[in-house]
This record gives sequence, C-alpha cells and structure tokens, in this order.
Amino acid sequence: MISMQTHWMTATEIAQAYRNRSLSPRELVKDLLDRIETVDSRTNAFLQVQSEDALAQAKTAENDFMKGRLGGPLHGIPFALKDIIDVAGQRTSCHSSVMLDHVATQDAVVVNKLRAAQAINLGKLALHEFAIGGPSFDLPFPPARNPWNLDHHPGGSSSGSGSAVAAGLVPLALGTDTGGSVRHPAAACGIVGLKPTYDLVSRQGVFPLAFSLDHVGPMTRSVADAALLLQAIASPPGATVPFDADLDKGVRGMRVGFVRHFHEQDMVADAEMAASLEAAATVFKELGASVVDIQLPSLDTFASVQKVIQMSECWTVHHRWLEERPQDYARMSRRKLLPGAFLGASDYVMAMQQRGQLIQSVNEHLRDVDVLLVVNSMEPACRIDDEAAAVRTYPRQARAPFNLTGHPALALMSGLSSAGLPLSLQLVGRMYDEATVLRFGAAYERETGWQKQHPGI
Amino acid sequence: MISMQTHWMTATEIAQAYRNRSLSPRELVKDLLDRIETVDSRTNAFLQVQSEDALAQAKTAENDFMKGRLGGPLHGIPFALKDIIDVAGQRTSCHSSVMLDHVATQDAVVVNKLRAAQAINLGKLALHEFAIGGPSFDLPFPPARNPWNLDHHPGGSSSGSGSAVAAGLVPLALGTDTGGSVRHPAAACGIVGLKPTYDLVSRQGVFPLAFSLDHVGPMTRSVADAALLLQAIASPPGATVPFDADLDKGVRGMRVGFVRHFHEQDMVADAEMAASLEAAATVFKELGASVVDIQLPSLDTFASVQKVIQMSECWTVHHRWLEERPQDYARMSRRKLLPGAFLGASDYVMAMQQRGQLIQSVNEHLRDVDVLLVVNSMEPACRIDDEAAAVRTYPRQARAPFNLTGHPALALMSGLSSAGLPLSLQLVGRMYDEATVLRFGAAYERETGWQKQHPGI
Repeated sequence: MISMQTHWMTATEIAQAYRNRSLSPRELVKDLLDRIETVDSRTNAFLQVQSEDALAQAKTAENDFMKGRLGGPLHGIPFALKDIIDVAGQRTSCHSSVMLDHVATQDAVVVNKLRAAQAINLGKLALHEFAIGGPSFDLPFPPARNPWNLDHHPGGSSSGSGSAVAAGLVPLALGTDTGGSVRHPAAACGIVGLKPTYDLVSRQGVFPLAFSLDHVGPMTRSVADAALLLQAIASPPGATVPFDADLDKGVRGMRVGFVRHFHEQDMVADAEMAASLEAAATVFKELGASVVDIQLPSLDTFASVQKVIQMSECWTVHHRWLEERPQDYARMSRRKLLPGAFLGASDYVMAMQQRGQLIQSVNEHLRDVDVLLVVNSMEPACRIDDEAAAVRTYPRQARAPFNLTGHPALALMSGLSSAGLPLSLQLVGRMYDEATVLRFGAAYERETGWQKQHPGI
Repeated sequence: MISMQTHWMTATEIAQAYRNRSLSPRELVKDLLDRIETVDSRTNAFLQVQSEDALAQAKTAENDFMKGRLGGPLHGIPFALKDIIDVAGQRTSCHSSVMLDHVATQDAVVVNKLRAAQAINLGKLALHEFAIGGPSFDLPFPPARNPWNLDHHPGGSSSGSGSAVAAGLVPLALGTDTGGSVRHPAAACGIVGLKPTYDLVSRQGVFPLAFSLDHVGPMTRSVADAALLLQAIASPPGATVPFDADLDKGVRGMRVGFVRHFHEQDMVADAEMAASLEAAATVFKELGASVVDIQLPSLDTFASVQKVIQMSECWTVHHRWLEERPQDYARMSRRKLLPGAFLGASDYVMAMQQRGQLIQSVNEHLRDVDVLLVVNSMEPACRIDDEAAAVRTYPRQARAPFNLTGHPALALMSGLSSAGLPLSLQLVGRMYDEATVLRFGAAYERETGWQKQHPGI
C-alpha cells in the first residue's frame, strides 16, 4: 500500500525507501507521472513533462539498485526545473512568447550537478514570464494555480515550482529568486523555499532577470530535503560544512533576532500571519534559544534600493526585445520592465552605495544573533483573478531585503489561516551559514509538524 | 654632516638613525620644513604645511626616544596627505573652490591609523581638483610641478604627493588612485606608488571620486617604505602576513607574466619606456625567476569599461554642485564630469557585468604566475603647459585596468629617459597578495638601484 502515499514522500524518505527496497524508482516515477496526469490539468504547474526520459532514468536507477550500486542521496530522486533553467536540447521558454524558439545548447551548471547526482528530471515548470511578475493570462501558457485552493495565486515567479511541490507532483524543484521568487511561492503553497547566499549556487545557464540579485534555490517539502538539494547544486567558494550537518542538533543556547518592526511598524501584516510569527518565537524559546528584538533599516529603505537595481538590470537584459517585439510580452511584464528605461547611471550608483550600507547593517546585527526571524508575505495567497491584490503582493513582503544583501533566507510554512491557506515565515542567517539557518528550520519543523500538512488535492 | 642628507633618507633609514641616536625627530622635521620653505615655491607640492604641529609632534617623539620609549616603525616619521583626506579640524580643500569652506570634523581612518603609529603629519598636498583630472590653471591653488624638470607635469591626480616625495620634502605620502592617480605621479616623478587591493585600505574620510574604483595608497622612495606605510594604514578583512615579510627573499623559482601586448600591440609605448620593461624582464630572469608572455584582454576593453563606471560614479557625487555652481569647477574638471549625465543605468549595469568577466580573466592568469610585469605610462612626463599632451596621458597608460579589477599594482622607477625624466613599470599581483608584489619590487630595486636616483632640485 506504500504506493498510495508515494507522492507525499520527501526525498529523504524516498532515499530511505530505496535503501529498504520498499520502493523502486520506476514505481515512484510512474506514480508521479500518473498524478501529474490527473492533477496538473488543474494546477498548471508543468510546462513540459519528460515522461519517457524520466522513465528511462528510473529504469537505469533501478538496475543500479538491483546491482547494489547506490549512489549519493539524490540517486533516483525526481526533480523538476523552473523553465528558466537550461537543459541541453530542450526549449527554455521562460514562459514567454519571446523564447518559444529558444533551444538550449548546454546544461545549466545546476542541471549538470543534478545529473552527476543521478537525480531524475521530470520536466519544466511554469513561472511568471521571465520571472518578472504576474500572474498573466495573455501568455502562451496559463499561470500555475495554488493546490490549497485553485482559485488562489500560488505566488511567483517560481509559481510552477511551488505548485508542483505542494501538490505532490514532484518532491524537489528549483526556483529562482530576485526579489523573493522562491520564497513567495513557498509561502503561498506552504512548502520550504531557500534563497541561498548570493553566488553560492551558479547562475550559469539560468536566464537572468537582474544579475546582482538573482539566486537559484531549492523548493521542497522538508528542511532536510532543502539541505540535500542545496548540497547537490552548490558551488561554494571554499570548503563549507555539509549543509545538513547540524539539522538534528537543536537550538538550545542559540540566539534569535526577531525583526518585528517589518510587520508591525513598517507594514502591518494580517493578524493570523503575525500570530504565527509570535508562535514561532515562542517555539524557539521553548527549544532553549533566546529571542531578542532586532531593529533593521525599514522595509521601505530596502525596497526602494532593491527596485532601482532590479529595474536597471532587467532593462539591460530586455530593452532590445522590448523595442523590437513589445507585443510578445505580457501586459504586466511590459509594465514592470519599461520604467527601467528612465533610470540614470547615477540612480543605480546611489542604489549600489546604499546597498553596501544595508549589507553592513544586516551583517552587524548577525554578529549578535545566529539567525533572524522575519515575516515572509504579509498575507496568505490572494485570489489569482484579483489583479489588484496580486499587484499588492509585490510590495507587501519582507523577502527583497535579502536579495539586496545576499544573506541566506529560508521560507517555512508556519500554520494555516482560517481560510485554509498556508502561513509562512523566514529565517535569515550569516553569509554562507546555510547550515545554521537549516538547523533552526529543522528544529522548528520537528516541533510544529507544519511540513506534514498537505493540500487536499 | 648627516643632516645634509636627511631629506633623501627613507623612512626605514630614518627609523634606523633614530635607533642609533644619529638623528633626532626635531632635527629631521626642521630640515624638511626648511627644504619645503626653499624648494616648494617652485614645486607647489604643499597646499598647507603644519609646521607648528609637526614640530610639537617631533618634540614629543624626541622625548619618547630620550626615555627609551621607541614605538613602531613609523614612530616620529614625517608624512603628508593628498588634500582629499580628512584631518579633524582642518580644511579638506580637494584643491577646489567648491570646498574652500569645508572643515573636516573627524580624522579619516587612515589618518587615525597614522596617528596611532605616532607618525608626524607635515601637512596637505596638492592634487588635481577632486582627483578628476588636470593640470588646471584656473583653480585657487597652482598645480604641483615635476621636481625632475619644473616645466614638466608631475602626473596626477596625486600630483603634490608625487612631487613632494620625489623632491625630498617628505619621505612618505598618501595618494588616491581611481584610474591610476597614485601610479601616474609615481611614474612621472620616479618614486614608488602602490595601489593596494580594493578595500584593503579604508576610504572612510577620503572624498570619493568613484567609490567602486577608489583606492588609497602609499607613495614613497623605496619599496620597503611602501610596505611599512601599507602595514600602518591597512584594514585587512582577515589576517595577512606582514607586507614586508618577504622583501629580502628574492624571486628565484618564481614566475613573472609579462603583459607585452599592452605597450606593443594595444598601444605603442615610447621606445625608452619599452626598453626599460625588457630590461626589467631580463633582471627578473637573472634573479632566477621565469618570465612568460601573458595575454590579457586589450587595454581598450579595460579602459572603456573603467570609463563608464568612473563617469557614472563621479557624476553621482558632483551633479548637484555642477548644477548649482559650475563656475567653481575648473574648465577641465567640468569637461571630465559632465558626460556622466548622459549615461543610463543599463550602461553602468553592462559595464559592471563586463567588469566581472575582466576580474575573472586576470584572476585566471594569476593562477599561473606570481606577478604580472606591466607597462605604467606609455611615455615619460610631458610638459605641464602642453594641454593636449596632458590630456593624452589619460588614455595612454595601463593603470586603469587594475582599478577595475581591484588587484594590487606597484609602480616602480625603471630608468631615466635621454631627456632626464623618470621611466616606470608596474608589478601586479593576486588579490591581497601585496607581500609578493613588494617582494618582486624589492628584488628589482636591489638589483637596479633606480630608487637611489633623485632629481637635482
């Protein structure tokens, strides 16, 4: 009867079941392909399913296992990719008409690494066009939907990644995050999303949105899975501890800085969201950590600097196409991209100088505490057809500060709203100290069990 | 009779003489103040001489020495500062009418460090207005002149620093270097100039020209002095070896990458300048190092990227004043600053992306060799009243590439032209590996003795 439950298994559980011989890669891949077949006509998470390839890879893994050749922890584990990441010989659509004829000639570095880890590629996932903004309904593919409530927004821009992982279509996905695009769908869909330290994961072969803010990150159903996936895709500049080394250690004696002013003064979060953050602070205290209030610069300060940098950099990528074929972009994408034309070099320079000061400020606070506890979205997911509400989700968040500063930021489910939609929080750590962020995440997860909640789809 | 020669003594020699009791700080400072009095009406190196303060500090040092309280290696050693560096309570003029009323309220970090080292501040030195460009004759102070030939340009923008050190007015000076402004006067005046690794020396309290390209660096009459001064002013991010640790070790078995194409293909250097570089390569071979040709990206590539970044960043600093009081700038400064108004954010973004690639390219070459041997200026100093020739010195150099990449670059005298003007070369090293660059410089200096040549002023 185990196959009834396979689609909710985490990568860690799957690997265990492979070792036990209680599950085979072909059985798992078939189950997931079946589930995609029945569920994804409603969630629209996949743009392209690599069924044959995936089954062939599952067969290879199965043969390996039969012969006792067990590889690393991702051997035979299925994953899927935001369709902004190159796989040699496949189209990278970026969910845009602009790119429908674009076939990648090389694997992205992260794809290459997942291949080396012998993980199984299930296919490509929906996003907001070029990761800029959405949801848009004037594109060649429909927007992904939230498996907790199909009338609701799954968050973006890694919408398909969030939707697919939350709906049990695949245990692991990669997203990208320039102003929060891994952590927004993680919040909306109630999963784990990790924006690693800037440059820890290679962006080579990933279509750029804004090069100095772009990050590739894991989206999973458990903290342990995020650690495993990060381990497989990271290109650390020096030696780092394995990212999952401290997951079981607990947080006794450690220090949490609670950035309350983000959601109490700078913006006022939904009451259930705020309550879930207070509850998290209590959990950490009960686990033996100390919790102190931390005052960072205001959300507005971070947001205005991030926005100038993002608009400048993405205009640089898109201006020629926007001039030559504006009609091939969604209306919402054009509206987000065009203001970049009006920024002067000195706007960008001033933003970069302020950015340096903001990085220093966050670094200074992280000398006194081990992690920051920070709000993620200010509200649970809005309706997908409520454009005004969807537009409001862009400023009403505390994710972009850490794109600007480059610190690792982990999004975790922190409850369910009275409407049955996921709540979420963020844990932010020191540069390259993903191990500590994940350690706090794992302790929180063990204590609360929110990661075991799944949508009824 | 030793006082006859004090003005040519290096800091290292002065410190030795202090320990021997063959020289006293008061004697030295008096000698230097006398020499400034007689010589500097022609060289125009000093904007402000702190005679009383310097004598008081010399007296304090003398008392310390009498009581056997010898401090660090700069204790009682005179220095002077490019007048772009803040000293609390003093005017920082930036050699501009714009700043005539500006009095600094705090010491720059580097000044604070030199105070802690108990060095003696002789005063403030001339520069090109705001370190932008020159020489200009429409400013409140005249431009400094070259002590080797007063009709010639001393290089810029740290003109006064180059002139004062070369003329024997002070053994140590600080300059700043955004596109070569430490190494240009070092070349023109036949002294040692070091642009350290980006961010190794704090820029706090130093008026910015272009923040991502600005460096503060030592200007001295020997490599050992540059190492001592760097040791005193550096704020390394982690532990580094003392910068003078390897000065005496020689270069046997080490590897030099000779970047000939900069002055043979990309631009064609003056024949005597080129010959001095060939001679330097021969010196390193004779000292037991290997010399191989290295192909970096072209000078034009580096220059065009550096220029966009510099123009963008300095427009950011100056645009308000340029709008409000353009008449307070020199004509040449306005001409250099105004084009920054026309650069878009995406020009800057593209330049920053290319910058990343150029840094990577230089880093890759520095994996195979220990230092690069690189041309400095393409010609010896031009006449100071030949504006067209002075303007040509800006592109005709190979200094700006290393402002862009951040690698440490040491300028050394490499001969005298048939007209009796200094020739110069550069040694460029790995990030934070000043110790190796200085090691090569010291070996070259010992072998050639060029550092012992002084102008007949």
